[in-house]
Amino acid sequence: MTVSAPATRVGFIGLGIMGQSMAGHLLAAGFPLHLHNRSPDKAEGLIALGAAYHPTPAAVAANADVMITMLGYPADVEQVYFADNGLIPAASSGSYLIDMTTSQPALAVRIADAAKARGLHALDAPVTGGDVGAREARLSVMVGGAPEAFDAVLPLLRVVGDKIVLHGPPGFGQQAKLCNQIVVAGTMLGICEGLAYARESGLDAQKVLASLGSGAAASTLLSRLGPRIVAGDYAPGFYVRHFIKDLEIALADAHASGLELRALRVALDAYRRLASDGAEDQGTQALIEAYRKA
Amino acid sequence: MTVSAPATRVGFIGLGIMGQSMAGHLLAAGFPLHLHNRSPDKAEGLIALGAAYHPTPAAVAANADVMITMLGYPADVEQVYFADNGLIPAASSGSYLIDMTTSQPALAVRIADAAKARGLHALDAPVTGGDVGAREARLSVMVGGAPEAFDAVLPLLRVVGDKIVLHGPPGFGQQAKLCNQIVVAGTMLGICEGLAYARESGLDAQKVLASLGSGAAASTLLSRLGPRIVAGDYAPGFYVRHFIKDLEIALADAHASGLELRALRVALDAYRRLASDGAEDQGTQALIEAYRKA
Repeated sequence: MTVSAPATRVGFIGLGIMGQSMAGHLLAAGFPLHLHNRSPDKAEGLIALGAAYHPTPAAVAANADVMITMLGYPADVEQVYFADNGLIPAASSGSYLIDMTTSQPALAVRIADAAKARGLHALDAPVTGGDVGAREARLSVMVGGAPEAFDAVLPLLRVVGDKIVLHGPPGFGQQAKLCNQIVVAGTMLGICEGLAYARESGLDAQKVLASLGSGAAASTLLSRLGPRIVAGDYAPGFYVRHFIKDLEIALADAHASGLELRALRVALDAYRRLASDGAEDQGTQALIEAYRKA
Repeated sequence: MTVSAPATRVGFIGLGIMGQSMAGHLLAAGFPLHLHNRSPDKAEGLIALGAAYHPTPAAVAANADVMITMLGYPADVEQVYFADNGLIPAASSGSYLIDMTTSQPALAVRIADAAKARGLHALDAPVTGGDVGAREARLSVMVGGAPEAFDAVLPLLRVVGDKIVLHGPPGFGQQAKLCNQIVVAGTMLGICEGLAYARESGLDAQKVLASLGSGAAASTLLSRLGPRIVAGDYAPGFYVRHFIKDLEIALADAHASGLELRALRVALDAYRRLASDGAEDQGTQALIEAYRKA
């Protein structure tokens, strides 16, 4: 199959902050779009632009050649792919399933095996770049799966991302994404500890951001989230609760291979404390609140 | 005084990796350069280009209008400024002392007070940007001191840096730099834990760097040190032993104000273990070695 608009019908399930932007880009690129979401109201904007809504993942599968999922947790992925009204039982032979949720590598392998048994092609393809990257269609997409399937859907991935890399067989996209999240966790700790120290020292936070943004401390996260942290703006680009999920998967996976990641554990502990204090629906930059003095 | 080349005579003490590059830029900009270094042989290249060498900091002070120090540890700074053959006893009234070493905020305050008592102007002005920033004259310079003194030496600081910020009174340059180092510590932990996970997972490290460099994990450190880490190249751009000094100062300073920085402590512990295993003269990217499995 050659993926191209408008011949290829695309299914999209999961219309959160990221999913809304990504689905919008696919629609704008001319792909007929078939939607499902646990909260149907989140589909309204896209329906107004011409997308069709379906009551179940299976109904999406019946109307699409390529299905993309962008969900919250591994349990959601399992449900959407394996349930009786899910994608795998309903998809037509030869169609493509692309899970862009950040999820467990082992689950990606299970999906790929089950898909193969039914003549389907599955890829794990989580993304990084956050709400800004999704909005600007400049996501970095990390893919695991067969090279032929990767090549087939590449034109579609290019609609949402500008860096698309095949990392290896099923699960390798997820593993690359976990690497990314481990780096993000350490970077967030550094940024929030540095800005907490600045606050205690009586430094002017704007000047600190100006100096740090031009030296060895510079990062995408510092330039995007530093100003939000300083402003006390914890509106979610990426939810605390979803980051906790990612870090739990990464820590469990690392631990299983005998690797102790101490900073990752510090980050996970801090985010869990934040969540238990009611911040689970805030953005990850709320980590600075973990450094308020008692 | 108006600082300009070639009228202003510049003293430079401390010719390490960073100092050599910075002094070279000042010489190239036309400032008469007067050098001292604990190991005189490190001055040879600059002497060949026209710089003068002096046997003590006091002798540099006798020949310079502005003195810059770029040393290793607070004890070195104390010696160079306060010893009998040091800068403060020997400097002419009205001259400028700029300590660009990363050092203790409290020591910067002591230097500024002692300088003022002798009619001298002192600034603390540590830098970030690493060996690459020093080589390319693109350092970020964080300054503490009097606004008049800052304005006077700005033309000179612009020779080595492209982002020069006055953060407040004496010591505030050092505090801004400690913020920077705290952010760097977290970011280094994230990068090394992420790449250690990648190694354990059997991922292709080059592909991981490509994906991570385009998303939320992107940082100056990842793009500069990621390739060195993957190549096992631990040649120093910034020494493990100097980073330990910075993190010790930052942790003590934060602790004194009642702030617990857990990631900073993890970083310091890991770097101390590395140093005790013989890596103190390697670059900070050697942190990846802390994640070798036993």
